[in-house]
Amino acid sequence: MPDEKKRTLLRAAEVSALEETGAHPWNPNSQLRGTRLGVPCGLKRTGVNLMKVAPHKESFILHAHHLEEEWVYVLSGRGIAEIDGKEYEVGPGDFMGFATPQVAHHLRNPFDEELVYLTGGENREVEIADFPKQGRRMIREGSKVQIYRLEDAEEFGPL
Amino acid sequence: MPDEKKRTLLRAAEVSALEETGAHPWNPNSQLRGTRLGVPCGLKRTGVNLMKVAPHKESFILHAHHLEEEWVYVLSGRGIAEIDGKEYEVGPGDFMGFATPQVAHHLRNPFDEELVYLTGGENREVEIADFPKQGRRMIREGSKVQIYRLEDAEEFGPL
Amino acid sequence: MPDEKKRTLLRAAEVSALEETGAHPWNPNSQLRGTRLGVPCGLKRTGVNLMKVAPHKESFILHAHHLEEEWVYVLSGRGIAEIDGKEYEVGPGDFMGFATPQVAHHLRNPFDEELVYLTGGENREVEIADFPKQGRRMIREGSKVQIYRLEDAEEFGPL
Amino acid sequence: MPDEKKRTLLRAAEVSALEETGAHPWNPNSQLRGTRLGVPCGLKRTGVNLMKVAPHKESFILHAHHLEEEWVYVLSGRGIAEIDGKEYEVGPGDFMGFATPQVAHHLRNPFDEELVYLTGGENREVEIADFPKQGRRMIREGSKVQIYRLEDAEEFGPL
Repeated sequence: MPDEKKRTLLRAAEVSALEETGAHPWNPNSQLRGTRLGVPCGLKRTGVNLMKVAPHKESFILHAHHLEEEWVYVLSGRGIAEIDGKEYEVGPGDFMGFATPQVAHHLRNPFDEELVYLTGGENREVEIADFPKQGRRMIREGSKVQIYRLEDAEEFGPL
Repeated sequence: MPDEKKRTLLRAAEVSALEETGAHPWNPNSQLRGTRLGVPCGLKRTGVNLMKVAPHKESFILHAHHLEEEWVYVLSGRGIAEIDGKEYEVGPGDFMGFATPQVAHHLRNPFDEELVYLTGGENREVEIADFPKQGRRMIREGSKVQIYRLEDAEEFGPL
Repeated sequence: MPDEKKRTLLRAAEVSALEETGAHPWNPNSQLRGTRLGVPCGLKRTGVNLMKVAPHKESFILHAHHLEEEWVYVLSGRGIAEIDGKEYEVGPGDFMGFATPQVAHHLRNPFDEELVYLTGGENREVEIADFPKQGRRMIREGSKVQIYRLEDAEEFGPL
Repeated sequence: MPDEKKRTLLRAAEVSALEETGAHPWNPNSQLRGTRLGVPCGLKRTGVNLMKVAPHKESFILHAHHLEEEWVYVLSGRGIAEIDGKEYEVGPGDFMGFATPQVAHHLRNPFDEELVYLTGGENREVEIADFPKQGRRMIREGSKVQIYRLEDAEEFGPL
């Protein structure tokens, strides 16, 4: 589609209109509203998303990507970031950046105000991510996802 | 440096403290303040930067990257985005995303209020970018940059 | 090591002198001699290897890479290539190329003459490979390898 | 085309049948016959080619790739390899590997016997290559090639 005219500008009103809801299936308290900003503009390798977590809800789940860089910039509200086993209260203007292989992290909103942040990172063809509290590893190739138990990993050697 | 403890959280106050100033050498009206957010956290392939353009100043210069995806999210103030030959007034919550090969674009602030935005994209090992008003092409390999005149490009064929 | 002088030429005698032996730990009949040709010349993303399989021995094991392209060019001797469930006798000048995701393949030498071939492909930072006869999947990140049972893969959904 | 059946085996007779002729337009003495082996098998990122240079002809031209790794393995005949300003006679079983950024190299056949070699390397989306004797730099993006004079490169700074 080399001749397809790509969008380059999304107005704030369109960003609101494109809002979707989501939740991580392994965390019953996960609940988000958000807009994928890069996708309508044709960005393929770079993700940028506007996310909103309602009071007393959580973003996704504690996780650590092996391959994809990721970042978060808080726009409004407050949240609790769990990063590598410690908790930090974060608010407007705070930035989090997770180089690879990532330490495990998670963002939740135990406060009474909506937490709004911009987040993004790499969209790689293949990703490996760990979910330490569920003891699971995710292998994603394109859009195909498979889950393994971390404890099922064997070393390479005689079977 | 696999054992070096990477930073994951930059507080808003640290973001301010890390602010630098910059300007594009080919545009006398280019003048910015800004903080590289990804670099202190060890992000290598993903750039994220907080940028501020004073009233009546411009960000950089009209340009089009061939290889690196790029995006802009306006936080406060207003600006004029020149995108592919047209001008758009942009303000808080507006998003711009430039898929590759990019159309030429530039952001300036002709207003009386500071323009603040978050911007980012890919950091690739090699980049080719065009500056149509200067008639120049930039070839960057790592940190080494060389400039050619667009009009000096020859087709491949007998010399 | 930007200033280290890289080797560019390996003489046939040096290729012989650099020969190593190897075997796949899951196949008791796997036994090879071979020389890594790209490594001494500093090739990082491209593998090229000269391989020799003695009469009645096998190269490695039936496998399918998900991410790394691979090829084989037979120099001398004969072999049996098992490719996607079928067997083919191969000899000098025959070429095999395995695009990704690969079909499962394996090369063995049931004949009385040594089988010699050049083989190569991509060296990617991350690889996923399946071993259908052992029911195993290998996940390699850099030099770290972990093995899962193919049957342990779960779909992504509620736990 | 995920369901298209990819070829995996090219018989020696098919390799001969697929032979093409070529020459580098900047070297009047360049003349080759050869078969692209990876392409019919669907290899996208890895090139493998069987090449034949007639007596008293040359392969291509002295060049140095900046980004693509490259290798040569001599199958039969003899040649003169010019590598980084020195000349080496090469013959069967000799291997050359050019890590990036490459030193300038070229292969010619001043002898009375055909020179046959297998050669390959990376197929990258973007390549930069220098031709020191012509004082030219090639910029290739996909299949689009543009040529600049090496002497026209300017440093990045005030115009």
